[in-house]
Amino acid sequence: MTDKDIPFSTQEYHRRIAKTRHAMQAAGIELLFVTDPSNQAWLTGYDGWSFYVHQGVLLSLDSDPIWWGRYMDSIGAKRTCWMDDTCIHGYGDQFVQSTDRHPMQPLADLVKSLGKGSARIGVEMENYYYSAKAHSVLTSNLPDARFVDATALVNWQRLIKSEEEIHFIRKAARISEKVMHTAIDRAAPGVRKNELVADIYHAGLTGVDDIWGDYPAIVPLTPSGLDATAAHLTWNGAPMRAGEATFFELSGCYRRYHAPLCRTVYLGTPPQDMRDAEQAQLEGIAAGLEAARAGNRTCDIANAFIDVLKKHGIHREGRCGYPIGLSYPPDWGERTASIRSEDTTILEPGMTFHFMPALWMDTWGLETTETILIQPNGAAETLCNVDRKLFSKD
Amino acid sequence: MTDKDIPFSTQEYHRRIAKTRHAMQAAGIELLFVTDPSNQAWLTGYDGWSFYVHQGVLLSLDSDPIWWGRYMDSIGAKRTCWMDDTCIHGYGDQFVQSTDRHPMQPLADLVKSLGKGSARIGVEMENYYYSAKAHSVLTSNLPDARFVDATALVNWQRLIKSEEEIHFIRKAARISEKVMHTAIDRAAPGVRKNELVADIYHAGLTGVDDIWGDYPAIVPLTPSGLDATAAHLTWNGAPMRAGEATFFELSGCYRRYHAPLCRTVYLGTPPQDMRDAEQAQLEGIAAGLEAARAGNRTCDIANAFIDVLKKHGIHREGRCGYPIGLSYPPDWGERTASIRSEDTTILEPGMTFHFMPALWMDTWGLETTETILIQPNGAAETLCNVDRKLFSKD
Repeated sequence: MTDKDIPFSTQEYHRRIAKTRHAMQAAGIELLFVTDPSNQAWLTGYDGWSFYVHQGVLLSLDSDPIWWGRYMDSIGAKRTCWMDDTCIHGYGDQFVQSTDRHPMQPLADLVKSLGKGSARIGVEMENYYYSAKAHSVLTSNLPDARFVDATALVNWQRLIKSEEEIHFIRKAARISEKVMHTAIDRAAPGVRKNELVADIYHAGLTGVDDIWGDYPAIVPLTPSGLDATAAHLTWNGAPMRAGEATFFELSGCYRRYHAPLCRTVYLGTPPQDMRDAEQAQLEGIAAGLEAARAGNRTCDIANAFIDVLKKHGIHREGRCGYPIGLSYPPDWGERTASIRSEDTTILEPGMTFHFMPALWMDTWGLETTETILIQPNGAAETLCNVDRKLFSKD
Repeated sequence: MTDKDIPFSTQEYHRRIAKTRHAMQAAGIELLFVTDPSNQAWLTGYDGWSFYVHQGVLLSLDSDPIWWGRYMDSIGAKRTCWMDDTCIHGYGDQFVQSTDRHPMQPLADLVKSLGKGSARIGVEMENYYYSAKAHSVLTSNLPDARFVDATALVNWQRLIKSEEEIHFIRKAARISEKVMHTAIDRAAPGVRKNELVADIYHAGLTGVDDIWGDYPAIVPLTPSGLDATAAHLTWNGAPMRAGEATFFELSGCYRRYHAPLCRTVYLGTPPQDMRDAEQAQLEGIAAGLEAARAGNRTCDIANAFIDVLKKHGIHREGRCGYPIGLSYPPDWGERTASIRSEDTTILEPGMTFHFMPALWMDTWGLETTETILIQPNGAAETLCNVDRKLFSKD
């Protein structure tokens, strides 16, 4: 126990659990099975690259959370969770990636042994780590339980960050600034993209002073030219070329907390239509930041941005942002509120978003974004300090 | 079209599709919905970090595969898939991470428009990217279809690698050697683990000559001391210490193909029990490699290894390996056969495994592993060339 290095205070974990229990009671849930690795870490501190096998956290209304996973990983759980070792349960390796056995069988037994075999059980129906098969096996092995869709129940509790969490996100932002400056400085005609990404990773993991770098939940996105008209292509070994724009979608990560940031670099003199779009985008971002204040809604940010673009003759659809914080692959978004026209979530102080008003056009992409923190009063604070503009290099 | 850079020949993709259709017919499946990103890439070439939203490939018995995903990502699909642009279908952003709409609604419409609304449809029930909710929405929107569990149907077709694929894995192995040598060379008391991982990433992404480095599907695992008794803990900012063992579980990656490799480094003079375990492990690995030959079974490899360990008084349970090749996060294993006592898959030439007979003891972990290629005759070939031993450094 003595050499455990838990990221947050015990009060912080108790605060999170109390908040989650409140939401469980409102939804009539007696036992919550949490499969999202970010939710697991948020509730218990568990941290390991083991989410590729079935694991989860069981939270009832009255006892400490239980971490449940592969026996091999229960050792890691004992080293990273704040709870007592008696709260850690492992299942045997014969259930791992087997065609005739499934980990949800021992999980059902564990639930029964807790006296919850006929409880109302919340499960995260829409989650990478709760497969269709897992749901099918769990429900058929707990025939007396009643299952409730608890997708994003914990995620919503994460929306407003505590002071301790904001402190971590600010540290991640220091790393984000460093990786972005590295990318901009290193970008030049002839530089192979994989070598540039190697430098980005090196900067991000080295971190800043005592802020050591953790792995971001999404790899660096760095597409150039026509590839940058698509949103999510990864790098290859081709050299960067003059006359092309490259967008950098990057995030520093400190103890699983993120502060994503995008900037675009043009090698040469950007064409006029790109410069025009830059002006529209920057004006739209400023309008969005003004609208990003407590009491307003997420749609107000999106609409403020979209309205400015419309004035400039640019039609822009889709989401332009999402909440961020604690995350594991494959996504650094929290998957709750969205910054988009049809989302009416009320903004509150302590919420953190990646405000992501990117433009993907026919022949180029222009990404200029900010990680923002909603303030008690006034416009949102941008957490990363990197010039907000289209960069050009000769 | 002209500047597409598809990793494999058209014949190779047609071979894969013919093989998959054969398995579909054997299972009575008329339409296969493929959600595993590795399976999607294997069939179509699609490559992008977009699997955090719903997407997939539809394969029927008679037409070219259809890539289906978020509209934003259909641009990337047109740039990376071998098929004609008419085979790429995008859905609107209003379905992305929405609480009242789901992407499986437009997918159901697409299936109906293909005249397959009452077909026997195979779905990958056990997959990170096919959630319980996705299955629920898809089945309720296709009431006339009959659904069949096609988990790992495509994965099994990937088990024997083509010459083109083995060529890629050999390239990945060159990178694996480089990253492992980097880790061993850089390990020293006082070196912060995150800085060591920064160097590992830099080496891996820079690659070797024209072999550019892609991102591995698992981050470098580099735990030291007691953390190394757990299998899957990631790094932090603490300095390495004399008198501790660190295991390195790493893989180079070339165009999504992997060649995982583990070695262990002790800073100082390893204790005798660790040296004894090293001898047992190396002798067990040699026995496993001898058993890893065409005609034998996967369990023969595991049992050969376990028997040697038993002779040395070490009880070892669990899997000691899995097939590897093309992969996306969160796992670089193929999730079909396992190298374990109860698995009876017949070994065939062209199969590639990560033979992973690691030992996790009470106070240290010892990982020494090999990526192996099953040969037409004789023992397996190890694809990485790094001394097989416990490294010690003063």
